[in-house]
Amino acid sequence: MLRIGVIGYGYWGPNIVRNFNAIDGAKVTSLCDLNEDALGKAKKLYPSLATSTDVQSILSSKDIDAVAIITPVFTHFELAKKALENGKHVFVEKPFTSTIAQADELVELAEKKNLKIMVDHTFLYTGAVQKIKQLVDEGELGKLYYYDSMRVNLGLFQHDVNVVWDLAPHDFAIMDYVVPERPLAISATGEIHYNSFEDIAYVTVYCENNVIAHFNVNWLSPVKVRNTLIGGDKKMLVWNDLEADEKVKIYDKGVDVKTRENVYDLLVSYRSGDAWVPRIAQIEALRLEAETFVDCVKNNKTPVNDGLAGLRVVRMLEATNASIKDKGRLVEL
Amino acid sequence: MLRIGVIGYGYWGPNIVRNFNAIDGAKVTSLCDLNEDALGKAKKLYPSLATSTDVQSILSSKDIDAVAIITPVFTHFELAKKALENGKHVFVEKPFTSTIAQADELVELAEKKNLKIMVDHTFLYTGAVQKIKQLVDEGELGKLYYYDSMRVNLGLFQHDVNVVWDLAPHDFAIMDYVVPERPLAISATGEIHYNSFEDIAYVTVYCENNVIAHFNVNWLSPVKVRNTLIGGDKKMLVWNDLEADEKVKIYDKGVDVKTRENVYDLLVSYRSGDAWVPRIAQIEALRLEAETFVDCVKNNKTPVNDGLAGLRVVRMLEATNASIKDKGRLVEL
Amino acid sequence: MLRIGVIGYGYWGPNIVRNFNAIDGAKVTSLCDLNEDALGKAKKLYPSLATSTDVQSILSSKDIDAVAIITPVFTHFELAKKALENGKHVFVEKPFTSTIAQADELVELAEKKNLKIMVDHTFLYTGAVQKIKQLVDEGELGKLYYYDSMRVNLGLFQHDVNVVWDLAPHDFAIMDYVVPERPLAISATGEIHYNSFEDIAYVTVYCENNVIAHFNVNWLSPVKVRNTLIGGDKKMLVWNDLEADEKVKIYDKGVDVKTRENVYDLLVSYRSGDAWVPRIAQIEALRLEAETFVDCVKNNKTPVNDGLAGLRVVRMLEATNASIKDKGRLVEL
Amino acid sequence: MLRIGVIGYGYWGPNIVRNFNAIDGAKVTSLCDLNEDALGKAKKLYPSLATSTDVQSILSSKDIDAVAIITPVFTHFELAKKALENGKHVFVEKPFTSTIAQADELVELAEKKNLKIMVDHTFLYTGAVQKIKQLVDEGELGKLYYYDSMRVNLGLFQHDVNVVWDLAPHDFAIMDYVVPERPLAISATGEIHYNSFEDIAYVTVYCENNVIAHFNVNWLSPVKVRNTLIGGDKKMLVWNDLEADEKVKIYDKGVDVKTRENVYDLLVSYRSGDAWVPRIAQIEALRLEAETFVDCVKNNKTPVNDGLAGLRVVRMLEATNASIKDKGRLVEL
Repeated sequence: MLRIGVIGYGYWGPNIVRNFNAIDGAKVTSLCDLNEDALGKAKKLYPSLATSTDVQSILSSKDIDAVAIITPVFTHFELAKKALENGKHVFVEKPFTSTIAQADELVELAEKKNLKIMVDHTFLYTGAVQKIKQLVDEGELGKLYYYDSMRVNLGLFQHDVNVVWDLAPHDFAIMDYVVPERPLAISATGEIHYNSFEDIAYVTVYCENNVIAHFNVNWLSPVKVRNTLIGGDKKMLVWNDLEADEKVKIYDKGVDVKTRENVYDLLVSYRSGDAWVPRIAQIEALRLEAETFVDCVKNNKTPVNDGLAGLRVVRMLEATNASIKDKGRLVEL
Repeated sequence: MLRIGVIGYGYWGPNIVRNFNAIDGAKVTSLCDLNEDALGKAKKLYPSLATSTDVQSILSSKDIDAVAIITPVFTHFELAKKALENGKHVFVEKPFTSTIAQADELVELAEKKNLKIMVDHTFLYTGAVQKIKQLVDEGELGKLYYYDSMRVNLGLFQHDVNVVWDLAPHDFAIMDYVVPERPLAISATGEIHYNSFEDIAYVTVYCENNVIAHFNVNWLSPVKVRNTLIGGDKKMLVWNDLEADEKVKIYDKGVDVKTRENVYDLLVSYRSGDAWVPRIAQIEALRLEAETFVDCVKNNKTPVNDGLAGLRVVRMLEATNASIKDKGRLVEL
Repeated sequence: MLRIGVIGYGYWGPNIVRNFNAIDGAKVTSLCDLNEDALGKAKKLYPSLATSTDVQSILSSKDIDAVAIITPVFTHFELAKKALENGKHVFVEKPFTSTIAQADELVELAEKKNLKIMVDHTFLYTGAVQKIKQLVDEGELGKLYYYDSMRVNLGLFQHDVNVVWDLAPHDFAIMDYVVPERPLAISATGEIHYNSFEDIAYVTVYCENNVIAHFNVNWLSPVKVRNTLIGGDKKMLVWNDLEADEKVKIYDKGVDVKTRENVYDLLVSYRSGDAWVPRIAQIEALRLEAETFVDCVKNNKTPVNDGLAGLRVVRMLEATNASIKDKGRLVEL
Repeated sequence: MLRIGVIGYGYWGPNIVRNFNAIDGAKVTSLCDLNEDALGKAKKLYPSLATSTDVQSILSSKDIDAVAIITPVFTHFELAKKALENGKHVFVEKPFTSTIAQADELVELAEKKNLKIMVDHTFLYTGAVQKIKQLVDEGELGKLYYYDSMRVNLGLFQHDVNVVWDLAPHDFAIMDYVVPERPLAISATGEIHYNSFEDIAYVTVYCENNVIAHFNVNWLSPVKVRNTLIGGDKKMLVWNDLEADEKVKIYDKGVDVKTRENVYDLLVSYRSGDAWVPRIAQIEALRLEAETFVDCVKNNKTPVNDGLAGLRVVRMLEATNASIKDKGRLVEL
């Protein structure tokens, strides 16, 4: 039985507790939050849960095997570091840390102590992303050309980070998982209309082999959009995460190019065949992710969303912020 | 009767001839194209039309008052210049010219000779754009925050320009018309997957007063998207040009911010009221534009899409290309 | 404190227990189901709940004020009758009963004993239906012409009723609530493709003043549709219940008719103005319904979905079945 | 060269003239209309066209091989009869005639004189319907269960027929073409809100082998809908004719039924696999139909939309009207 201590019971924490508790072989035994009301609510649902407002009760407890850190990003490093130092596996909310240096240190520490880190990139465990990953891996799309994502809606404004750190970790993590070509450099732009954090941002990521990725994130959109286009030289796909039943569509569309002999210009023609809507497995992503964490801890496996994946996402976030500050200046990764 | 000579009878030329011919007080009297087949087709539809493969027949004719130039962009400058020098008004396909310097010279020449230039920014004459312009002018949206456009589809690859020069002139012209804040600088990125022209590009335009504009143009998308979001501090709108009946939707949505006394952080709350789909006039944009050209020539008026508007669009195109070449480097306008 | 006994803990029962328990001034004290596993699950969530497989424990308990009957329709009458005879208020799943006679008897019994009946027409408590009701009542649509509903999807086949008794109660109840004109007669058609119950049916309800209502219900549709059109002489509305944010749209569209003097035919012209998407309150319908039930019991009020409303829906269901059997024969209500 | 005389140059006539003129081996030589303005417009476009306000100029001309009758339905019979009597092939607007008796007489007459009749069921020549026909014929959907069509919009009110005779001929003709099972009987309902013709109607057609077809036609809808569902025991399809690119979607969805031994009830399970959007050929339906007419005349072939097809549609229209008058009474075909 993996005994899990959860730190943070705000917006997302209840989902974490519920899902870890639903797994055979795991149990949330302790919960910590500064808000006594939140603890009271948890206690009602899970009477046997030990609750406390003191994180030490979890970080230094001998009866806890793993710690789930569901707190604001600026606290991740300190909490995760102590948990690892005390020999506990760590499940941590995305984004992993506030800086690359912090992420590096945690990854190294975990490795030294032979502990697991999982960063909560939940989307990787959705049926849609798993189907997309499969399609790319099987070469269905051919050689990739671009990855273009739009994730916009009204609010929620965060108090400590800009729209990039709030929304883009989802998409950076998905791209990191799905696109085989490594990201090389970032040019990003954005604007601030309230307080001191960007509420709109546009991020271009240059990758190997001429793959270009782009991310449109916006807290000031009147409509909610969750749309991703992925184009390859064989096929292209559209992923609309707001569709109930038909999230992913693959198009047998593309460009055929022939070079005529002795002729400098290209003969470009268009291919437009059938489209195809694969059945997407109806899995609860967070449940599958929690199960994977438990499995990785118990059987010494490495999840796809390990500390290194978290580090790669933080590296893109840091570069994005640096580029935005300099109005699009190219920042190497 | 305004006598019009048309140069170029390829994809767009037939629409120009048809629309100018439909106006009382104007008549297309001559047509020039290098392709004899094209001339033959035109002759069948308009038996009284004089056709020729020699542009001089139009540029130097004494029986022609205005010239419509519907040819590839690299020819615009030479043709327009000669037409103006010969005392003819000019209607010219977008983009206006290949360089700012050319546009400048044409604008100056027209002014000196008291002739009219109209650049074919057809979209300005659509019911949708006119409604959006009216909404912004009447302050319905409040102070603007952003302008975000996506114009993507499969092909058509151009042989002489990249996707920016092909698709963005539409959106640059619309933004120039609708957004009161002046553009200040551009950071743009893009990628080449075939021959030597970018087929995907992302353009950020920084404007006065923290307005940020963004343009996503792509020749390699499996689906056609024509979507623009415009956000203000009072309301926000979505323009989907592919909708048959409900192209523009205005949302009474936004963010209300209060600063608490002696407190550094902001109280942000969200406003979400009714939405509204205004009736859009069903006008044929090109007809209205042609009528406006004839009216401007006859009554010495200046159209919104005059040479200066064309120049402003070319300035943005040139800056975009320069920025893309330097991977996002900020280029002042 | 209203003490509620719930009978039936299958698909819908858990929602009923959860919502009644969430209301101040009410508490689910007993639960009955034939399935011991279901009772076990309930017990885990609500440790203080008394559970039993014997309905008498609820129907004859002196410590229960109201009974919620969440069982198959053929059991409603017996259970509700005993509950009323024992002096308990009744909340009963839709459709109310299997026959008009049963519904009549229950309504009479409740009246005699001064007890409340509420039939679970949950949709009446949704923000969308409440907005539509308000629009009709305020005359926004003008004199009504038609009510046209489509409710189709794949499955779920019921074991004891046809698609009409499964899906149409929703729409019959909504029409009964929203449309002021009384239904007069029904012509319905349908077809059986598996076992012995219709899986597809089409129902026309003739109402007073030339209002015509139509219901398309289908268990064999590959796509889920929840669409209702309501037309009046002033405005028309579309209600798409699957839209996340914009469920109801009102169109300022219609027909203007003038009779020319001395001329027999009509001058018909079309009006097409703005459309409007009202903000719909985000209420949990079942919670509001449960609160209303408690309020009606405590303060001796009559809900809109009382026994008489349930009876009117059963009358339409019975007439529909009779008409389907006779392939569209008109059945008076 | 097939010489065609066209009678009627109102809303649809210009398309007929344009398309027949575009075919090699055919030519519209004469045009008749009561409206001299209409004739003037045609003359401008086709200077060599002989125009007249007298139908005899076409019906009795020796220089005309075929007559296209593009006039109101109540005139079809007289005009077609005279054309056939004078030895001319007939292309006639839908619906074929006002009564079954008329259709019968024309079919017989044409057969006796060995002349061709084609009824303008244009939809049969669209890429979408041809793809659907192919899918059904190849058994892709399996044994058919139902055909459910919705064709609604605002107006246009006709002066001489109700909404059934205006809109349903399209769908009746498509069903007649696509569904192999013969229609047996009709139950229909409708309502009149202006003058004396139904503006809303609902038609159920019972077919062989338990296939049920339904048609929802409405002149008073605020939104335009062109939607057809076709369900079979293997697959189901949705045809949305308003979609630009993805008109037809095939769903690998269905119901699997097993009968358990010694058990009276059915085990029903649902199958939900991939969906598929076949590429639809971009053909101009009217052009293809016109070519087919010319081909049938020249090579003595019988088109799918011959007089008998027209007759079958009129039979359904007549039965529908009879059933509506009797409020849903079943009318055998």
